[in-house]
Amino acid sequence: MAFNIFKKKEESAFPLPERTSTDKEELFCYGFDASSLQGEPSALVKPVNTDEVSQVVAFANKQRTPIVPRGAGTGMTGGAVPVKDAIILSLDGMNRILEIDEKNMIAVVEPGVINGHLQEKLEERGLFYPPDPASMSFCTLGGNVAENAGGPRAVKYGVTRDYVLGLEVVLPDGRVMMTGGKTYKNVVGYDLTRLIVGSEGTLGVVTKIFLKILPLPEETMTLLCTYSHLNDAAMTVNGITSAGIIPRTLEFMDHESILAVENYKSYGLPADAEALLLIEVDGSHNAALEDTGKIASICNALNGSVSIAEDMFAKQRIWEARRAISPALYRIKPTKINEDIVVPRGKIPEMLNELKGISEKYNVKIVNFGHAGDGNIHVNIMTDKHDKEEYDRAGKAVEDIFKATIKLNGTISGEHGIGLTKKQYIGMELSATTIEVMKAVKKAFDPNGIMNPGKMFPNF
Amino acid sequence: MAFNIFKKKEESAFPLPERTSTDKEELFCYGFDASSLQGEPSALVKPVNTDEVSQVVAFANKQRTPIVPRGAGTGMTGGAVPVKDAIILSLDGMNRILEIDEKNMIAVVEPGVINGHLQEKLEERGLFYPPDPASMSFCTLGGNVAENAGGPRAVKYGVTRDYVLGLEVVLPDGRVMMTGGKTYKNVVGYDLTRLIVGSEGTLGVVTKIFLKILPLPEETMTLLCTYSHLNDAAMTVNGITSAGIIPRTLEFMDHESILAVENYKSYGLPADAEALLLIEVDGSHNAALEDTGKIASICNALNGSVSIAEDMFAKQRIWEARRAISPALYRIKPTKINEDIVVPRGKIPEMLNELKGISEKYNVKIVNFGHAGDGNIHVNIMTDKHDKEEYDRAGKAVEDIFKATIKLNGTISGEHGIGLTKKQYIGMELSATTIEVMKAVKKAFDPNGIMNPGKMFPNF
Repeated sequence: MAFNIFKKKEESAFPLPERTSTDKEELFCYGFDASSLQGEPSALVKPVNTDEVSQVVAFANKQRTPIVPRGAGTGMTGGAVPVKDAIILSLDGMNRILEIDEKNMIAVVEPGVINGHLQEKLEERGLFYPPDPASMSFCTLGGNVAENAGGPRAVKYGVTRDYVLGLEVVLPDGRVMMTGGKTYKNVVGYDLTRLIVGSEGTLGVVTKIFLKILPLPEETMTLLCTYSHLNDAAMTVNGITSAGIIPRTLEFMDHESILAVENYKSYGLPADAEALLLIEVDGSHNAALEDTGKIASICNALNGSVSIAEDMFAKQRIWEARRAISPALYRIKPTKINEDIVVPRGKIPEMLNELKGISEKYNVKIVNFGHAGDGNIHVNIMTDKHDKEEYDRAGKAVEDIFKATIKLNGTISGEHGIGLTKKQYIGMELSATTIEVMKAVKKAFDPNGIMNPGKMFPNF
Repeated sequence: MAFNIFKKKEESAFPLPERTSTDKEELFCYGFDASSLQGEPSALVKPVNTDEVSQVVAFANKQRTPIVPRGAGTGMTGGAVPVKDAIILSLDGMNRILEIDEKNMIAVVEPGVINGHLQEKLEERGLFYPPDPASMSFCTLGGNVAENAGGPRAVKYGVTRDYVLGLEVVLPDGRVMMTGGKTYKNVVGYDLTRLIVGSEGTLGVVTKIFLKILPLPEETMTLLCTYSHLNDAAMTVNGITSAGIIPRTLEFMDHESILAVENYKSYGLPADAEALLLIEVDGSHNAALEDTGKIASICNALNGSVSIAEDMFAKQRIWEARRAISPALYRIKPTKINEDIVVPRGKIPEMLNELKGISEKYNVKIVNFGHAGDGNIHVNIMTDKHDKEEYDRAGKAVEDIFKATIKLNGTISGEHGIGLTKKQYIGMELSATTIEVMKAVKKAFDPNGIMNPGKMFPNF
């Protein structure tokens, strides 16, 4: 038993032995996330309430043992991958929906609640929680808060941050802090709520989440527009927003994505199209109908071929095709380097052009799709990590992609966060001063540096 | 010349003598805000660019002289009122709109730009910046950022925080930091942007603001609904949101406010009404028409008497009446203690009932109006500060109001901030732990405590 956490057993016994495992296989399973990186934790603890979280965190702080909070491990950048000998604090046992308050349009949940599970429970009552990351059927709301998760609906409804009204947080010394609360407006003191949203588990452990919810829109309509020229699709995106329409989703797929999906499973997408837009509008029946008509006109005027999903079945089929991109891509190559850059919306054509150039320069296949409505492009470099020479070229392509993104006033991550995979690039976007201030904030919360260390900043 | 800033003249000359005034009258004018509190600054500096702000702040930091950033001084809680011998840093000279980027729906402004001025420039181009504090024709966007200003449209469109994409900030040691940027999504590092929004000038000086803008809605329609029973008005608020309609404004006036406004200037409001709702919807012409019809039905079903503004003139008249509340109230009593509590929307009737009880208990007149749509009630205790006995009773009523608010899961400030006037109450809402964390964050930014000291926290 060489585990760090038991080193000083005499001084301080581990607080929750009945919730703790050091089983090798279990530690393996809780040691990686969707980034495919693998850590070597020393123990896994599954607390069931705030008090238990507090006990474990206080213990870790006293022992100066790193502690890594974890949801479903669907993060793309290694945020939940532990440094060596860390304690994994899995919040999946804290999965109760504590309250759905229709009158005040608030839901209170524990961090282990699955996003899709809350969505279902709300929809049954005619209510709506907009953030919809692709992993919504298995990712947790605690993880969504840690990463400030987005999704296709963000273009109209915003991201996780826009729905978190308050948090209960266990601080790195074990104290419990409440931020915000049950009101839609609050300017009492600093906005710690939104500081903690997106902090990747480095400032504390979220144990309770107060969410704003909305009434479920009466109607949703889905349009599929295909284009022979990429630029026409990009012009359509601007045309729609200039017309004052904010669709519920405004998704983009390039030729390579369409092809990959059609080769994977035939959904009936036109494999020769250069680009495709998947557009959804919502609102009252009449408003959705009106917006659908206007959007169809804009698409047609820009040489798009429009089809409108006639029923729930057709809608589901279109979204299935969209969600199939990720698995489909693995048919091209076994390794996917997945970035989620954002550029100001009007600069999408320029960025796609840069990506084409980078793909040619390094002779690597790049497949692009994503949330065109907010300029958020998922850039996928398809490679094989066992082909060292190609993998190196792919790595160089990543650096060029980030350079081009920043040149266009963009950001290197819109949804996935920094974690481990992007920390060496953070200095390309943030100045040394900004990083110093962030580190000072981290130190203010976590002077001993036990809370999810090694993430976000290089050499930290 | 007893001014603190000149004490160590030999060591370090004041950096911008040509932009600095120590004129007594000018210092008087820049020493108060809408809270009516008055400070005694030692100097007034009016920088015109970021570099000048940086020089002055770095100087103040070296001398350990307090520095107080200031916009138009329209704040209600004394946030811009200087501690004794502070340097006032007036940003009103930095008032350029640097960029309106229609393609990417972003505006870049200096902090001294008047909110209403930006609104006008945008509307000319068919664009829209939603946050609309009552003082919008003279308050500055820098002040709006410092206080996280709201307004009637917040119920649909959110508050200032929801539109700030990035900031340029001069830190308390004079370094310049950029946060966020020109993209709608960004998860690179901690969300310092939203930490600084609402920080009341205590973490740094905002010198550039990147704002999200929207297309101007095609149509706006305005309804006025009056009620014989307060509870029917409150039920209407819930009825509208339950029907899935999110109006652009959902304003409430109680009987006393209606009476005050009618006595001030006859707008034709029914002086015998117990309550009034001022509701606006926007969107496409058809969508606005549809929502107007639905809302009118809901109001009628709850015994409301509905009138719809037929033209621009009628709309303006209704809003004039709404904006006349503040000046009208001074006809009742010379001193207005103005709170801006928020309760979860469904608890408005309960809160109004509590307010009635408090008014009777302390025998003070309380007038209520505000943003019913988001539970934000402007509670005005009308008194006379020269009548010490009554003024003391009013002070006790404030404490009871905050107690009742917190009991109903509310917050003591939704829009106005803490500043000086509410700092002794902050511990009623926030725990000692939360306040300690906030103070640690403050210290991380401003170890010497020079940046707008004495605000937000008691004994700090």
